[in-house]
Amino acid sequence: MCGIVGIVDAGGVSFPLYYTLYALQHRGQESAGISTFEGTALYTHKAQGLVAEVFSGDTLQGLPGNAGIGHVRYPTARSKVPDSVQPFNFKYRGLNLSIAHDGSLVNTSELREEYERRGQIFCTTADTEIMGSIIADALRTSKSMEDAVLLCMRRLRGSYAAVALLNNTIYAFRDPLGIKPLCIGKIDHGYIVASESVAIDALNGTFIRDVLPGELIRIDENGLSSTQIATANRKAHCIFEYIYFARADSIIDGTLVYDVRRRIGQKLYDVAPVGANTVCPVPDSGIAYAAGYAERSGIPFVEGLMKNRYMGRTFIMPTQQQRERAVRIKLNTVRGNLKDKKVVLVDDSVVRGTTSRRIVNMIQEAGAEEVHLRVGSPPIVSPCYLGVDMPTRTELIASGKKVEEVRKSIGATSLTYIPIEDLVEAIGCGKQNLCTGCLTGCYPVEINGERCSRYIVNYMAGTHQSDFSTFKTGKEKI
Amino acid sequence: MCGIVGIVDAGGVSFPLYYTLYALQHRGQESAGISTFEGTALYTHKAQGLVAEVFSGDTLQGLPGNAGIGHVRYPTARSKVPDSVQPFNFKYRGLNLSIAHDGSLVNTSELREEYERRGQIFCTTADTEIMGSIIADALRTSKSMEDAVLLCMRRLRGSYAAVALLNNTIYAFRDPLGIKPLCIGKIDHGYIVASESVAIDALNGTFIRDVLPGELIRIDENGLSSTQIATANRKAHCIFEYIYFARADSIIDGTLVYDVRRRIGQKLYDVAPVGANTVCPVPDSGIAYAAGYAERSGIPFVEGLMKNRYMGRTFIMPTQQQRERAVRIKLNTVRGNLKDKKVVLVDDSVVRGTTSRRIVNMIQEAGAEEVHLRVGSPPIVSPCYLGVDMPTRTELIASGKKVEEVRKSIGATSLTYIPIEDLVEAIGCGKQNLCTGCLTGCYPVEINGERCSRYIVNYMAGTHQSDFSTFKTGKEKI
Amino acid sequence: MCGIVGIVDAGGVSFPLYYTLYALQHRGQESAGISTFEGTALYTHKAQGLVAEVFSGDTLQGLPGNAGIGHVRYPTARSKVPDSVQPFNFKYRGLNLSIAHDGSLVNTSELREEYERRGQIFCTTADTEIMGSIIADALRTSKSMEDAVLLCMRRLRGSYAAVALLNNTIYAFRDPLGIKPLCIGKIDHGYIVASESVAIDALNGTFIRDVLPGELIRIDENGLSSTQIATANRKAHCIFEYIYFARADSIIDGTLVYDVRRRIGQKLYDVAPVGANTVCPVPDSGIAYAAGYAERSGIPFVEGLMKNRYMGRTFIMPTQQQRERAVRIKLNTVRGNLKDKKVVLVDDSVVRGTTSRRIVNMIQEAGAEEVHLRVGSPPIVSPCYLGVDMPTRTELIASGKKVEEVRKSIGATSLTYIPIEDLVEAIGCGKQNLCTGCLTGCYPVEINGERCSRYIVNYMAGTHQSDFSTFKTGKEKI
Amino acid sequence: MCGIVGIVDAGGVSFPLYYTLYALQHRGQESAGISTFEGTALYTHKAQGLVAEVFSGDTLQGLPGNAGIGHVRYPTARSKVPDSVQPFNFKYRGLNLSIAHDGSLVNTSELREEYERRGQIFCTTADTEIMGSIIADALRTSKSMEDAVLLCMRRLRGSYAAVALLNNTIYAFRDPLGIKPLCIGKIDHGYIVASESVAIDALNGTFIRDVLPGELIRIDENGLSSTQIATANRKAHCIFEYIYFARADSIIDGTLVYDVRRRIGQKLYDVAPVGANTVCPVPDSGIAYAAGYAERSGIPFVEGLMKNRYMGRTFIMPTQQQRERAVRIKLNTVRGNLKDKKVVLVDDSVVRGTTSRRIVNMIQEAGAEEVHLRVGSPPIVSPCYLGVDMPTRTELIASGKKVEEVRKSIGATSLTYIPIEDLVEAIGCGKQNLCTGCLTGCYPVEINGERCSRYIVNYMAGTHQSDFSTFKTGKEKI
Repeated sequence: MCGIVGIVDAGGVSFPLYYTLYALQHRGQESAGISTFEGTALYTHKAQGLVAEVFSGDTLQGLPGNAGIGHVRYPTARSKVPDSVQPFNFKYRGLNLSIAHDGSLVNTSELREEYERRGQIFCTTADTEIMGSIIADALRTSKSMEDAVLLCMRRLRGSYAAVALLNNTIYAFRDPLGIKPLCIGKIDHGYIVASESVAIDALNGTFIRDVLPGELIRIDENGLSSTQIATANRKAHCIFEYIYFARADSIIDGTLVYDVRRRIGQKLYDVAPVGANTVCPVPDSGIAYAAGYAERSGIPFVEGLMKNRYMGRTFIMPTQQQRERAVRIKLNTVRGNLKDKKVVLVDDSVVRGTTSRRIVNMIQEAGAEEVHLRVGSPPIVSPCYLGVDMPTRTELIASGKKVEEVRKSIGATSLTYIPIEDLVEAIGCGKQNLCTGCLTGCYPVEINGERCSRYIVNYMAGTHQSDFSTFKTGKEKI
Repeated sequence: MCGIVGIVDAGGVSFPLYYTLYALQHRGQESAGISTFEGTALYTHKAQGLVAEVFSGDTLQGLPGNAGIGHVRYPTARSKVPDSVQPFNFKYRGLNLSIAHDGSLVNTSELREEYERRGQIFCTTADTEIMGSIIADALRTSKSMEDAVLLCMRRLRGSYAAVALLNNTIYAFRDPLGIKPLCIGKIDHGYIVASESVAIDALNGTFIRDVLPGELIRIDENGLSSTQIATANRKAHCIFEYIYFARADSIIDGTLVYDVRRRIGQKLYDVAPVGANTVCPVPDSGIAYAAGYAERSGIPFVEGLMKNRYMGRTFIMPTQQQRERAVRIKLNTVRGNLKDKKVVLVDDSVVRGTTSRRIVNMIQEAGAEEVHLRVGSPPIVSPCYLGVDMPTRTELIASGKKVEEVRKSIGATSLTYIPIEDLVEAIGCGKQNLCTGCLTGCYPVEINGERCSRYIVNYMAGTHQSDFSTFKTGKEKI
Repeated sequence: MCGIVGIVDAGGVSFPLYYTLYALQHRGQESAGISTFEGTALYTHKAQGLVAEVFSGDTLQGLPGNAGIGHVRYPTARSKVPDSVQPFNFKYRGLNLSIAHDGSLVNTSELREEYERRGQIFCTTADTEIMGSIIADALRTSKSMEDAVLLCMRRLRGSYAAVALLNNTIYAFRDPLGIKPLCIGKIDHGYIVASESVAIDALNGTFIRDVLPGELIRIDENGLSSTQIATANRKAHCIFEYIYFARADSIIDGTLVYDVRRRIGQKLYDVAPVGANTVCPVPDSGIAYAAGYAERSGIPFVEGLMKNRYMGRTFIMPTQQQRERAVRIKLNTVRGNLKDKKVVLVDDSVVRGTTSRRIVNMIQEAGAEEVHLRVGSPPIVSPCYLGVDMPTRTELIASGKKVEEVRKSIGATSLTYIPIEDLVEAIGCGKQNLCTGCLTGCYPVEINGERCSRYIVNYMAGTHQSDFSTFKTGKEKI
Repeated sequence: MCGIVGIVDAGGVSFPLYYTLYALQHRGQESAGISTFEGTALYTHKAQGLVAEVFSGDTLQGLPGNAGIGHVRYPTARSKVPDSVQPFNFKYRGLNLSIAHDGSLVNTSELREEYERRGQIFCTTADTEIMGSIIADALRTSKSMEDAVLLCMRRLRGSYAAVALLNNTIYAFRDPLGIKPLCIGKIDHGYIVASESVAIDALNGTFIRDVLPGELIRIDENGLSSTQIATANRKAHCIFEYIYFARADSIIDGTLVYDVRRRIGQKLYDVAPVGANTVCPVPDSGIAYAAGYAERSGIPFVEGLMKNRYMGRTFIMPTQQQRERAVRIKLNTVRGNLKDKKVVLVDDSVVRGTTSRRIVNMIQEAGAEEVHLRVGSPPIVSPCYLGVDMPTRTELIASGKKVEEVRKSIGATSLTYIPIEDLVEAIGCGKQNLCTGCLTGCYPVEINGERCSRYIVNYMAGTHQSDFSTFKTGKEKI
C-alpha cells in the first residue's frame, strides 16, 4: 500500500504536501516524493527514506507552484529499487504529467506486452509507469483527461487510487470498484484529495466526501469538478484498511475506522465471552478493539504491554541472537498488570503468527494465569494481489489450519477470531461491497488461479471519443 | 531529569548500555553518552542528540570492557552546551573516574566557592563536575569510595542518583532522602543499576530491589555488595516521577507506576463523578489514568485524540503561523468519537495550561457538547529545584489562581484535580516519604527563600576516617 | 560532460566501478550511479552528489554481479533534477538494459517528436532516454545489439560515448566522429571501457587502445570483441578535452594529455617571449602548461598561487559580500614569490574572464610589477553544443572582442593566446580530426544557425537487417 | 601539531574564525572548535571532524560576540577521544576562560602530580587542561594575565603557542624559545593572531609581525598591546614547520616557507648533481623543492605523479588487499612522462620509508630507467617530543642506518638528503635558533634520556608579584 495526496492551493503547495505526507506516513515508510508545477516546468523531489529524511527546508523551497502531488511508499521486498520511488513523470510534446498511485494491477504483464508491441519502452517494472503510459498515449489523440482515464478504467485490472498532475491541474480517480480509498477536502485557498481524511485534518481542512468508485475529480485554480467515468454494480472496498491499515481517526468510505474497530471489539466479547481480570491491547493497533471489548464486557482495560517510541530503523543489532533483545526493548510487559491475571489479549489480526506467539509467551512469562487471544479479523487464509504486502499461503498461519491448531501453535489459552459476518456488520456497507479476498480466497477481479466474485462495470459513453461531451454535462459543482 | 545506568557484564557492556539507554530515552533526549573501562583506560563516547543519533555500530565497537556507565540528558534551557554532556571523566594520579548523574544540587554555588578557594579550577558549571571533584578529592586521602561518597552525602544538598565507573568497578548511590530513583537488577553475566526497572527488562534481567536512600552499591566482576552510608528519618521520593516522568511499566521504590496512575484515575471519578458518554485520554501520558477512570465509572474508554508517531525534531516549519499546523499534525481529533458527546478528558498534569487549552479547544471544535477535564495531579504551584525542568511560578497556570479561574482560562466545562491526599494514598508510601515541593511549596531540603520540611540524616561512622572499616562489616551480599 | 565506465570482472564489479568513478570524478560532480546485473535482475544505485556521498559500503554490497556500468555527471543548469541521474534503465520483454552516456545530441527534438508520434512516452527530457528508446526499439525486431547501435548511429546527431549493460554483457560505442573519448583496458579477471585511461590505471590494469569512432565493443565473461558499425572520412575529437577537461595523466586518442599541455606551454614562449622573473601557473589546470613554458624559456617555475584543498560544497557563506572572501580562502597569493616580480601567468583557457581578472588583480595586489597572461587555448568565441557546459556568446569574453580589448578588460600587462595552428600541432592528429567549434564557430555536425564542416559517414551494411551477419565476420579478437 | 587562531573584530568573529580554520586545516584534521564570548557568557562549539563537518550555518550563528578563538587538531593515536577536542573552557568565580593550544609539554606528569597534590582534579590528560589550570590558579591571587602567563612560562617545559579568551579579551603567547609559530595581523575592524600568516590572508588582512618568543599579546576592542614575559638567549623554531608542516605560502618567523623549500631544492642539485631528463615532485609537498631543483639544474620540471583530489576519509575499502588499490587511485603515474626517463624524484622528507618505497616502485613500473631520490631534509633519526606526531626510533627508516642502506631499502638508483648545514642556511636564522631534535637527537629543552642543548631564560620581574607594574610600562602600542 501507499499514501497519495494532491493539492491545489493559491498559497503554494510544497509545505502543505509535506505536512499531509506526515499524516499519511503510516501508509508507507520506504520512500517519499513530491511533484509540483509552476510556469511551464515540473519540479520533483523524491528519494528512499521517511518523509522526515527525504525533505529539507531547501528541497521544499525548491518545489514552487500552486498545484502538486505527493506519495509515500510501503516497503515491499520488490520495491527496494530507486526506480520505484514515486511520483513518476512523463514528458510528451510539451505535456508535463506526474502520477502517484496506490494499489496493484493484476494484468500488468499483458498490458506491458501490448504496449511494448506498439513500441513503448519502459524504464521500470512499476505499475505506475504502465498507467502513465496509457494516459499519455490517450492524450495524444484526445487531449481530454476524461478519455485517458476512461481508457485506464477499461484496460487496468486491479486496484488503483491515483492522483495526476497535468500542468497545473490535479486529477484524481479510483478504480470502478473503489478498492483503494480516496477522499476530498476543502482547505483555505483550494482543495485536497488524499488517501485518508487525516491528511485533510492535518491542514485543518473540511472533509467533503469520498471520491466515488469510477469517478474522476479535477481540481484547478477555478475549483473542483467531477465526472463519473465508470459505474459498477458493486463495490470492493479493501476490508484490511478497516482492520489494520488505515489510521483509526480516518473516515474511509463514510465510516470512521475507530468506530469499526471498537464495534468489532464489542462483538468479540459477545461471540466468545470469557471471565477475565484484564483486557489488554497489543499496541498500537489493538487499542480501539480492546477499548470496545472492555466497554462491552465490563472487564477493565489495562495495558499489559508498553511500546518504546524511540525505536527506529537506525537501531543497531550486531548479532542474530540480539534480535530477540530488540523485541524486548521495543515491547515491554507491565508485569504488575499481568501477574496472576486472566488476560484477554486483543489484536487486530494474526498473519504469520510469529509476533502473536512471542507476545503470548511474554505475557505468560510475566506471570499471567490465562491468555485469551481475541482477534479483530477472521483468519487470513489467502494472499492479497491488490496492494497489501501479505505473505504467500504457506506463510499464513491460518491457511489450511483449524483454529485449534493455530491456538496451539501460538500457545494461547483460548483463541477467537471475529466471524466474517460480524466484521462486515461492523463496517456496515454490506459484504457485496467489500473485498474479502484475504479472508475468503474469492477476489473481486479475475486473478489467474483464484476464485472471483464477478461484477459488471458500465463505462460511460461506449462511443466515448465522439460522445464524451455528452456525459461531461454530468459535471457537478461540489 | 536524566536517565542513568551502570552495568558489569562478563560479555562486554557497550551494547547492553546502548539498549538500556533506549529504554531510558524518555528521561532525556538532549544528549547521550557511554563510558567503559578496559585494561588501564577509560573509553567515552558522548554527544548531543538522541541515543539513535549519537551511537553507531562503530562507536559501540570502540567502547571495550566489561564495566561501564551510560547517561541520557533532559533538555533544559541551560543545558544546551556541549560541556554538559555526560558522563564526566576525572583523571587523578592513575585513577580513572567517570560519573553520570541524575538530579540537581541546591548548594552548588557555596560548594564551587569552597573548592575554588582550595585551588580547584572547574571546566563547566555542571553539578556533576562538583560531585566528581569531591569524590576525586576524597580519594586522595582515603582510597575508599565509601569515604568519598560519605563526603558527598555530607556536603551535597539536593537530589542525586549517581553511577560512577572507577577503573573496572561500578559504584551507584542515591541521596539520603532517595529523591531520584535508582534500582538494581541481575542480568545474565553480571549486574545492572538503572534509573528505572524498564532498563533491567530491556536486558531480560531480573529486578532485585531499589537502591536504598543513602546506600552505596558496588559492582565488580566478583558480584555486588552494599554499604549504608547515611540514613534519614524520612524519604522524599519525587512525586512527579509517578505523575508523569517515569515510564508506566517501571517499578519505582516498590510501586508499579501504572498502578499508581490507574488508581488515581479511579479516585478522580470518586472525587468528581460526572455523567458523560466517553472517557478520553490525552495521549500518551493520560492513558493509564483514563483507563482507571473508565474502569471505576463504567463510562467507555474511547480515544478522541490520535498522536502522529512520525513527528521528530527534524519537522520543518517555515513560519510562526505554521506552528499551529504542527500541533494539528502531531495530535488529531477523532471527530466521530467526540461529536455531540459529553467527554471526560483525562490528563496527567497541567503545567503552563497552554497545551490543555489548545486540546480542550480542539475537542470542542470537533463537536463535543461538554469537556470535563480531570487531572491526575493536584495543581502545580511551585517550581522544582531538585531536577525537574519546570517553569517559574509566574508561568505556572495554577500558581496563585483558584481552580475556577484555571477552568475558565482553559475553557473546560468542569475541571477537577486529584486531591493531594488521594494522590499520596495511590502511591502508598506516605506523604512524609514524598517530595511534594511542586504541589505544596514545602521542600525536603533547605532552599533559599522557600519553606522546608526538615529531616534528620544520620551519617554512618562520625569518625569515619579511622572507623570506616567497622561499618563495612555491614556489607550484605545480595 | 560526464564520465562513463563499463566493467566485466569475474570477481564482482561494484567496488571496481566505485574506484574508477573516483578516478573520473573530475568529469562530473553533480551525480553518480552504478548499475550491475546478476541472475535475471538489474541492480541500480544512483543519486545526486559526489561518488563519496552517493555510495556506502552497504550500497556497494547491494550491487551484485560480474558486469556493470557507472556514470558521473557534470553539473549544468538544466541537469539539477533527480530524473537526469544516470545510468538509465529500460525494461522490455525480459530484456534488462541500463545505459550511461557522455555527450550531447543536437537533433533531440526531432527524434522525440518522431518517437512520440509512434507511441513512445518519455519519462524525462534526457538524451539518454532517447538513445535507450532507439536501442530497445531496435532490439524488438532484431535481437542484435549491432543493429540497434547501427540505428543509433544513423539517427543520433551529436556527440556520444556510451556504455550499455544488456543482461550480463557490456556494450560500448562512440559516435562515428569520435567526439567524446572512450578507451579499453585489460584488468585481472576481465575488461574495462572508460572515458579516460586513468580509470584503467585505478584498477592497475593495462591500456589496450581507444574505442574507434563508430566502433561497437562487446564484453562478456568470454572476452572482448569488436564490430565497426560506421566509418567516417574524418574525426572530430573534442579539442577541449586536451585543453582543460581530461586529466593530464590520461591518454586520449593516442596522445598523453600532459604532453599536449607541456608542448603548448613551450610554444607559448616561442610565440610571445617575454623577459620575466617567474613563470607562475594558475593551479591546478595551468601547471603542465607553465612547466612547459619554464622549460623552454629558462625562466624559473615558481608557484605564486596556492589552492586550499579543503574547500568543498559545504563551505558556508552567509552574505554576498563574503563571496569575495571565499575566493581568498580558496586561492592565496604567495606574496614573496610575486612582489616586485615580472610574472608570466599561465592558464589553460579564458572563458568568461571573471576569474582571470580576479587572479591578475590578486597578483598585482601582491606587488607584481608586470603580469603577462599566457593562455593555453585560442580565444573561445562560440558556444559548445556537443557536451561541454559553456556559456552563450554574449558571456564569452573573447566573442567579438579583439585580444587587446580582452587584455584591457582583464588588466594584464600583456596577453597572448596560443594560435590554433600551434595547438593543433601540439595535439598531433590534424585539424581535420578535431572538433574546434568553440574556437572557430564551425562545427563537425549540422547545428541550426551555425556553420558546419561536413563529413561523410559510411554505415556498414546498408541492407543491415538481412545482411548484418556478413560484417559481423569483421569481428576481431583483440 | 595543531592550528590556533584568535580574533577580535567589531563585526562578529564566528564566521572569520571559521574561514581562518579552513586556511589552517592542514595543521589538523581530527577535530575543530570555536569559543566566543558575548555579554557574560562563553559560547563553544567543537567536535571531532573537519572544519566543514563540525560547523554549520546554524552553529556559527549560535556563536555570538566580537572576540573568540579557534582550534584544529592533528590526529594522533592518543587524541581520538572527545575529551581532547579544543578549545578548553575553565570556569572560576565568574571568570570565563577558554584556551586553545598548539604544542606539547614534556613535564606534564610532574605538573599534574603537583597540582593534584594541591587539590586539582583533572578531567582529561590533555596538556591544555594543565596550562588552563595554572592560568586560572594564578588569576585567583593576581587578577593579572601577565602574572598568569609568567607562571606558565616558569612552570611549563616544552613547546606551546596558545590563544586564550578571557571574557572579551584575547591573549596570545609563545614559549620563550618560540618553538611553535604564531603571528599577528590587522583586519578590517580588529586584530588576529594565528599559527600561520595564511590565516591573515584568508581575511584579506595585513601581516604585522610574528609574536616574539616569550611575548604576551593582548587584544581587545581598544586595540593591541604587548608585554615581554620572558626572554631567552636563543630560539628553537621547529625546523619541521619549514620542511613539511607549514603551508608554503606562509611566512614563519620572518621567512617565506616557499622560499626555504625552493632554496633547498636548488642546493640539492649543487650537493648531488645528476644527469637526468626530468625533475618530478612527490605531490603536493615536494613541488616547491622540485621547482628549485629544476631551476638550478636546468632539467625540466615535469609531473610524473598525479594526485586525486576527491579522496577523503569516506573512501571505502572492503579488504586489506584493496588498500593497495587505494594508493593507485590516490596517486597515479603519468607513464608518458616517466617511461625510459632518468628521473630525479624530489620529496620533502622520508620518515618511515614505506611511502617512498612504494612511489619509487610505481615510477619504476611506469618504465623509468633511473630514479634518483632527492630529499629536502636530512635523515630523520630521532622522535619529536615537542608536538610533531612522529614515530619512535625503531620505526624511523634512517635511525641507525647508513644512507646506502636506506637507498637499498627504498630501491632508488641514488639517494641524497640535504645536509643539515644547507638546510639551516636555506632557513637563514642560524642553527642555534632552530629546534633540530628530530635530525640530531639533541633537543632545546630537557627531556628524560635525551641530549639537550641548554639555554637560559630570563623571566621579567623576579619579584613579579609586587613589581609587575614596572615592566608593564614596557607595553608598546604596535
